Amino acid sequence: MSKVKAITTDAPTGGVVFGDFELPDPEHYSAKLKTIYSGICGTDRGMVAGSLSFAYNPEGYRQMVLGHEGLAQVLEIEKNNFGIKPGDYVVPIVRRPGKCVNCRMGRMDNCTDGNKHEAGVTGMHGFMRGYFYDTPENLVKVQDKGMFDVAVLAEPLKNVEKAFEVFDKVSERSIFFNDYGTYEDKKAVVIGTGSEAFLFSFFAKDYGFDTVLTNRHPIPDLKKGMVDMIGAEFYDYTMDMDKIAEGGIDLLIDTSGHPGTIFKFARKLNNNGIAILFGTNGKAPPTGVDGSDIDYIIEKNITLLGSVDGARNHYFMALEHLRKWRYVYGDRMKEFITKKISPSDIDIFTNKPENEIKTVIDWSRV
Amino acid sequence: MSKVKAITTDAPTGGVVFGDFELPDPEHYSAKLKTIYSGICGTDRGMVAGSLSFAYNPEGYRQMVLGHEGLAQVLEIEKNNFGIKPGDYVVPIVRRPGKCVNCRMGRMDNCTDGNKHEAGVTGMHGFMRGYFYDTPENLVKVQDKGMFDVAVLAEPLKNVEKAFEVFDKVSERSIFFNDYGTYEDKKAVVIGTGSEAFLFSFFAKDYGFDTVLTNRHPIPDLKKGMVDMIGAEFYDYTMDMDKIAEGGIDLLIDTSGHPGTIFKFARKLNNNGIAILFGTNGKAPPTGVDGSDIDYIIEKNITLLGSVDGARNHYFMALEHLRKWRYVYGDRMKEFITKKISPSDIDIFTNKPENEIKTVIDWSRV
Amino acid sequence: MSKVKAITTDAPTGGVVFGDFELPDPEHYSAKLKTIYSGICGTDRGMVAGSLSFAYNPEGYRQMVLGHEGLAQVLEIEKNNFGIKPGDYVVPIVRRPGKCVNCRMGRMDNCTDGNKHEAGVTGMHGFMRGYFYDTPENLVKVQDKGMFDVAVLAEPLKNVEKAFEVFDKVSERSIFFNDYGTYEDKKAVVIGTGSEAFLFSFFAKDYGFDTVLTNRHPIPDLKKGMVDMIGAEFYDYTMDMDKIAEGGIDLLIDTSGHPGTIFKFARKLNNNGIAILFGTNGKAPPTGVDGSDIDYIIEKNITLLGSVDGARNHYFMALEHLRKWRYVYGDRMKEFITKKISPSDIDIFTNKPENEIKTVIDWSRV
Amino acid sequence: MSKVKAITTDAPTGGVVFGDFELPDPEHYSAKLKTIYSGICGTDRGMVAGSLSFAYNPEGYRQMVLGHEGLAQVLEIEKNNFGIKPGDYVVPIVRRPGKCVNCRMGRMDNCTDGNKHEAGVTGMHGFMRGYFYDTPENLVKVQDKGMFDVAVLAEPLKNVEKAFEVFDKVSERSIFFNDYGTYEDKKAVVIGTGSEAFLFSFFAKDYGFDTVLTNRHPIPDLKKGMVDMIGAEFYDYTMDMDKIAEGGIDLLIDTSGHPGTIFKFARKLNNNGIAILFGTNGKAPPTGVDGSDIDYIIEKNITLLGSVDGARNHYFMALEHLRKWRYVYGDRMKEFITKKISPSDIDIFTNKPENEIKTVIDWSRV
Repeated sequence: MSKVKAITTDAPTGGVVFGDFELPDPEHYSAKLKTIYSGICGTDRGMVAGSLSFAYNPEGYRQMVLGHEGLAQVLEIEKNNFGIKPGDYVVPIVRRPGKCVNCRMGRMDNCTDGNKHEAGVTGMHGFMRGYFYDTPENLVKVQDKGMFDVAVLAEPLKNVEKAFEVFDKVSERSIFFNDYGTYEDKKAVVIGTGSEAFLFSFFAKDYGFDTVLTNRHPIPDLKKGMVDMIGAEFYDYTMDMDKIAEGGIDLLIDTSGHPGTIFKFARKLNNNGIAILFGTNGKAPPTGVDGSDIDYIIEKNITLLGSVDGARNHYFMALEHLRKWRYVYGDRMKEFITKKISPSDIDIFTNKPENEIKTVIDWSRV
Repeated sequence: MSKVKAITTDAPTGGVVFGDFELPDPEHYSAKLKTIYSGICGTDRGMVAGSLSFAYNPEGYRQMVLGHEGLAQVLEIEKNNFGIKPGDYVVPIVRRPGKCVNCRMGRMDNCTDGNKHEAGVTGMHGFMRGYFYDTPENLVKVQDKGMFDVAVLAEPLKNVEKAFEVFDKVSERSIFFNDYGTYEDKKAVVIGTGSEAFLFSFFAKDYGFDTVLTNRHPIPDLKKGMVDMIGAEFYDYTMDMDKIAEGGIDLLIDTSGHPGTIFKFARKLNNNGIAILFGTNGKAPPTGVDGSDIDYIIEKNITLLGSVDGARNHYFMALEHLRKWRYVYGDRMKEFITKKISPSDIDIFTNKPENEIKTVIDWSRV
Repeated sequence: MSKVKAITTDAPTGGVVFGDFELPDPEHYSAKLKTIYSGICGTDRGMVAGSLSFAYNPEGYRQMVLGHEGLAQVLEIEKNNFGIKPGDYVVPIVRRPGKCVNCRMGRMDNCTDGNKHEAGVTGMHGFMRGYFYDTPENLVKVQDKGMFDVAVLAEPLKNVEKAFEVFDKVSERSIFFNDYGTYEDKKAVVIGTGSEAFLFSFFAKDYGFDTVLTNRHPIPDLKKGMVDMIGAEFYDYTMDMDKIAEGGIDLLIDTSGHPGTIFKFARKLNNNGIAILFGTNGKAPPTGVDGSDIDYIIEKNITLLGSVDGARNHYFMALEHLRKWRYVYGDRMKEFITKKISPSDIDIFTNKPENEIKTVIDWSRV
Repeated sequence: MSKVKAITTDAPTGGVVFGDFELPDPEHYSAKLKTIYSGICGTDRGMVAGSLSFAYNPEGYRQMVLGHEGLAQVLEIEKNNFGIKPGDYVVPIVRRPGKCVNCRMGRMDNCTDGNKHEAGVTGMHGFMRGYFYDTPENLVKVQDKGMFDVAVLAEPLKNVEKAFEVFDKVSERSIFFNDYGTYEDKKAVVIGTGSEAFLFSFFAKDYGFDTVLTNRHPIPDLKKGMVDMIGAEFYDYTMDMDKIAEGGIDLLIDTSGHPGTIFKFARKLNNNGIAILFGTNGKAPPTGVDGSDIDYIIEKNITLLGSVDGARNHYFMALEHLRKWRYVYGDRMKEFITKKISPSDIDIFTNKPENEIKTVIDWSRV
């Protein structure tokens, strides 16, 4: 047994502790890693608040190390097919496969039987600790130094990569493109203005969509600046629904998890329109869906699709996209990280900073 | 101008008349057809009742000839690429293309801008008349004599063909198959027990699904016999929800258009599950959809897809499937046509016969 | 150890023996089957002739039981998810999975690393024996009695099902359909007039293709009658190349394995044309392929695809297709089986009957 | 009529002239553009040499303006859906649609009937002139200033984008990925070391492939440096075939058009391997393809696919990729442009500079 500095919770009861946590030393291991950054997201806060009933501690443990978004440096690693060497920076994969047909082909994000685990969430210790052990196939290499300050976004971005993979497939059910085979005059509307909403917007914009972010309130200047930077638009839907819906919506992306909002916008989808449901908010109140809503979905050949998680290739592609954006947008990409804190600042789990896009724990400040 | 025996309505106001209807004689035409059978479906009844607000008369007309399900015989036809000759039996296509990118490639079922027309429904005279004129690309040849008594089902079946085409595409978003690459132990649940529900069930069964039909009441013996014939099962969901949902649902097909029922069953979908929304009932009351429903759709990678209409290839494939079923199930396939009536029996539009699967107008009885 | 009547060879050396063969009795087994029919194909004859260098005996054996095409009856079987019960007729699957990513998902036909086995061909005893043991996931149920006389064709047909699955996928690289979204005026040319060529032709015709079979000699009346039955055409390409190539070829299917013939026809492919390479003839002489051939393939966006074997779902679908054809074409489908012989008639492996489509061993004549 | 400085040829006879060329002034036009750069490729040289028999002058002309690779600046433009304004830099699209089903949906790269035109190649004046007129849907906007020096590569890169789109589709015929759902230990081999070969290599590397470029001779330091920059490898296949083929090839990309080389490498493809045929060399000598080659393609489920041209979306994506590479690789991306010349330096069409990757005409030097 060894002691490691770690941030732990008791799932699904909640609570959060920073301190020495005792973990067994593996007899054999294929990779040892030092944690560099940990990102904090709504799931972490939900677990600390005790509101995520699906979370559970690893077998035999009364605490679970938190943390699923991260960047780590390789201390030791065995020879591997992924070109990862000691000293490299890597992003660890969150979800670990079970034995179903999807997991067996590396697509644990599409796990059929639910017997997968997620680091820091369901039955497996997370990455909010000084160091950890892992295997090469669960580590994705960061290509160059310029990205270390944004690579922690690879984990949230991998969800977007997977969602767009599903969009690519589903949109083949008809010709979704315009008359010239592009998305250039198609409209994507992203509900929400958090980190996932922005990553979805970056993506939609790269595809060529006229991209609109929306929320039920105005956004601070930092976020407005980021909207401008990528050439998107923002509207407060309580004020400007008409502008958002003008010409109809072709691709709707929800990061709010709020049924009332989702269906308000779904009723603006064009023929062959697609809605990606991504944001979850289990406690959101019900909205009424009636016969005419179902009619609308049918008569217009509309698809609503839920998408969760992402697999190794999505992390890989996320890092490629971050690489591009890091260079194209320059230091402004760093504005995504709105705050860096020390591991001991566990207040962060109960007090979300105003205007947060992404708060990151810097493990060098331990 | 010529007079033709026809069944007309005034869309969207409603009403129904049988009698001589005056239509201009075309100067040139590429095909002249004699109507053999016309099928009657809920859309026809909805138009007669005046409850389908989207229906409208052809430009310049105060009446519209009803009828979109049909079988006709070719009286005259120009040389064509589809091998259709005088004397052949054909099924006419309902929806006619506009100018959008989907219509331009023969996929008016996926019309982007809504500028298509539908025979007997939206701005175009239907097939409930003694004879009509058309063009070869809108006629699909019936392959053999044995099918004349069921070919009228090609029109409703083409919707099922298209819906399964969409299912095939969408299900590629993950491995939907079992461990052995088949659907054999996957469960399909079809909500409804009308003609479309049965056609969906025939299809699901051919795919290999364990297939369950369900409704909120028991079904008559004729229908029960048909369920047995294809090796499916039926359960009244007000009594046996547990049996229906045992092991979860992989493919849900709704023909009811009832949101409360749809979401009741959607909550039983397995991971990667797909729901095909097909049945419309614009006046169905609302059901509450809350945050946990959205959560469920996301965490399980679920897809809900609306599917309407079908294109030429779906008619073509529908006839191939009917051909198979006509032979495999023998004369029992004829039980699908629960009643044949004369064109003058227009009561049928306001009084649905008990235990109807499909009522057909026989134009030889004019 | 038990003795079973079997037809064996010594792979890859060759030879053929009918007689008692000694095999160990399994301690536990999940299914015991009685062989009803065995089909004979070119691979069997190639093994007997000693010309298939890739064939090998099962580990520890100096002989291998031949036979990969078959129909069997279940004597005993454990409870299973495929609805197979004692007394049922089944088709056993030929190829058995290794551990690669394709095999792990039931797609051993796409085996990545080559570590699969094939009954009666590579390292696994085949089905030309009185009885054998197997597991339910390797057995595919025959749906009804009417098919027992043609079900032995499921094995060769499953190859066609898989090849068309690949065609379906590959043809999505562009719009392969005509202006109306069908294959109705597209031309498929099938090189060869053996059993696989006919099964491909049945399939192409069902898709709607104008279908032409061709060979370098005329065909006997029985085969000509079958061509007419399905509405296809036959031309001797040494005489009527112009008629075959008129309007160009959209889908080329080769069952000859002869490079000179393949490229002769490939040069007639239309834009976006696809060639399915299926027939193998390892000893066929070379043909010259030059820069202009490569140019042609590129400028016309042509795809040449090899396709081998098929998986469980292809057997399943093959049986569905045979069921249809058995009924639609009636007893004429039985003409596919040109000869039934006794297991002791091992001459059949060295003397191919004139005008053979498919010769079948009837194990009731043992 | 107006005179414009232009580089012309007489297709298909050949020859090249720089000087004033008389063209009619359009009565109405939607965009007027000033040429900034023109790229020179093998097709231009082939036309000048008179070796491309498929090239032809615009109707009514005895000369054709050369040039299909280009960057232009918008002088005037009507309001459009693509966000293009006066002053913007754009890449003009080469191929212009005919009326076939693929052209009608903006996919003239997949033209079914061959009735398309290509600027500077088949029946349409090219972009090697001081200014030209065009329409917005044929112009693709360059996103930022940093790219002006490499945007001329968008035209050759769009071919690579399209080829990989086809690869993405075709590779779905089986699981092409490794056990973890990525390409990371899959091998791509690119035959050739010209500009297209490099663009393919950049792309393969971004996908995660172990990427090898090869040729029949060593390459100069500049090219070797570029290979190293992207983390690929180069081997002279006359010396190191073993190293290239070690572990087999998963994706083969040919830019040579040389059949002997193509089949030499095709015989090293792994199961489910894919060969993209891209390079054309109509005069390349024949190679012998025999029965065992066809066998190999079949038994291994191999696909050989020709791919030509690309559509609007491929230009769009090409610019996105160039944007990324321009920033990630910095000024080294400029090394792709090995020479900039004046329009009057028409020697370039008959004398290819040693070590050329891409030579570009700078129209400011007119």
